[in-house]
Amino acid sequence: MTTVIVDTLKALPLFQHCPKETCEQLATHSHLDSYKKGQILFLNGEQAHNFFFLQKGWVKLFRETLDGDQAIIDILPPHTLFGEAILYESKTYNYSAEVVEEAQIIRMPLKILHQEIEKNGLMALSLLKSMTRRQHAQEMEIEHLTLQNAPQRIGCFLLRLIDQKQTEGPIIIHLPYDKTLLAARLGMQPETFSRALTRLREETGIEIKGSTVMAQSLSQLSHYSCAACSSGFPCSCA
Amino acid sequence: MTTVIVDTLKALPLFQHCPKETCEQLATHSHLDSYKKGQILFLNGEQAHNFFFLQKGWVKLFRETLDGDQAIIDILPPHTLFGEAILYESKTYNYSAEVVEEAQIIRMPLKILHQEIEKNGLMALSLLKSMTRRQHAQEMEIEHLTLQNAPQRIGCFLLRLIDQKQTEGPIIIHLPYDKTLLAARLGMQPETFSRALTRLREETGIEIKGSTVMAQSLSQLSHYSCAACSSGFPCSCA
Repeated sequence: MTTVIVDTLKALPLFQHCPKETCEQLATHSHLDSYKKGQILFLNGEQAHNFFFLQKGWVKLFRETLDGDQAIIDILPPHTLFGEAILYESKTYNYSAEVVEEAQIIRMPLKILHQEIEKNGLMALSLLKSMTRRQHAQEMEIEHLTLQNAPQRIGCFLLRLIDQKQTEGPIIIHLPYDKTLLAARLGMQPETFSRALTRLREETGIEIKGSTVMAQSLSQLSHYSCAACSSGFPCSCA
Repeated sequence: MTTVIVDTLKALPLFQHCPKETCEQLATHSHLDSYKKGQILFLNGEQAHNFFFLQKGWVKLFRETLDGDQAIIDILPPHTLFGEAILYESKTYNYSAEVVEEAQIIRMPLKILHQEIEKNGLMALSLLKSMTRRQHAQEMEIEHLTLQNAPQRIGCFLLRLIDQKQTEGPIIIHLPYDKTLLAARLGMQPETFSRALTRLREETGIEIKGSTVMAQSLSQLSHYSCAACSSGFPCSCA
């Protein structure tokens, strides 16, 4: 078990410069657990003791407003590391995390990771690099929320699910989770999402059956969605 | 001149652990220039050779879409460092920068900074800390774009311009730049902004004269805007 976790960590860019002993120490103190849909991993404001590797399943990161609305920060796919870049000053999580599809998650002590980062400049640099990428993706999200209309945002989301180099022929896209969650991820009310999807279908000629989307070609979608984006196509925020 | 720049740098959190020799080296290779409104500092995609300290004036960071629309990423106030956390991999700026109020800006070579960060773990950690704060602010912005309506977003912007601990009595807020730019900063069309401002006035009783906003109390604004925010009031993203 420990060896598997060490290998998993060493395959991640963040742990490229992490000494084997520290990876082993993390593995020794790690826990691999199975989670059901709906289980909460931690809450916004809670003292942060662990970081996580999502081995299987999907996890939603979110915050709740005083009004009781939910802002979805991200929906993480399998093979994602999260909770490692918490606010250093407060040492608390600044979002909540909930399992949205049955998951297997490795939980590891943040203290060991932070101690290593504090003494290991190369590892701090690796975290820095991954954070600049994350920052760029967030800036693109702000841009999309500001400039793309709702159907363009759905098109943009679909385009980021596929291999953008496939320039010829029809494409098939499988929605990764249900439409209610997808609407929330894109910051839309279910009714707005439903209207926007109808408009996207009319504008681009895509076909939608259940959770499968078919388009005659990539350019149908990219011409429509990427016109309102600064990165163009193929995109830099996939 | 060099001493002034060294002192300016040493006062910034990022340079807390930067050796004096490196600060001096940066100062020796720095340039202090005056800029007029409308001048471009650099363009999205350009090779990044410098980072900047905005001593006076305001600078807009933005991107342009294929459609020719502009997404404003930020409008920086005086005493801000920028361009230091560029995408490490590509070594290019991933936004454009334009002076929006007559400015004085110190330009310094990125290469010297990056060399220091690569060998100085404590400085990498300082940059990491400032990036987690920036990331949190961006997450809050995504949340606000998703959950706050337009009048609430204006109220939220106003609240972040003032001392939120002043709980008693009337408050006066000076808008930092003109309303067209403010609308763009908040991702609104000028007409939307204008309608939203009218609604904010009706809902909270604030008075607006030119670039001055008056409210009878902070709670008038905070009750209205902060209900649709997860951080509550006083806010964690000011």
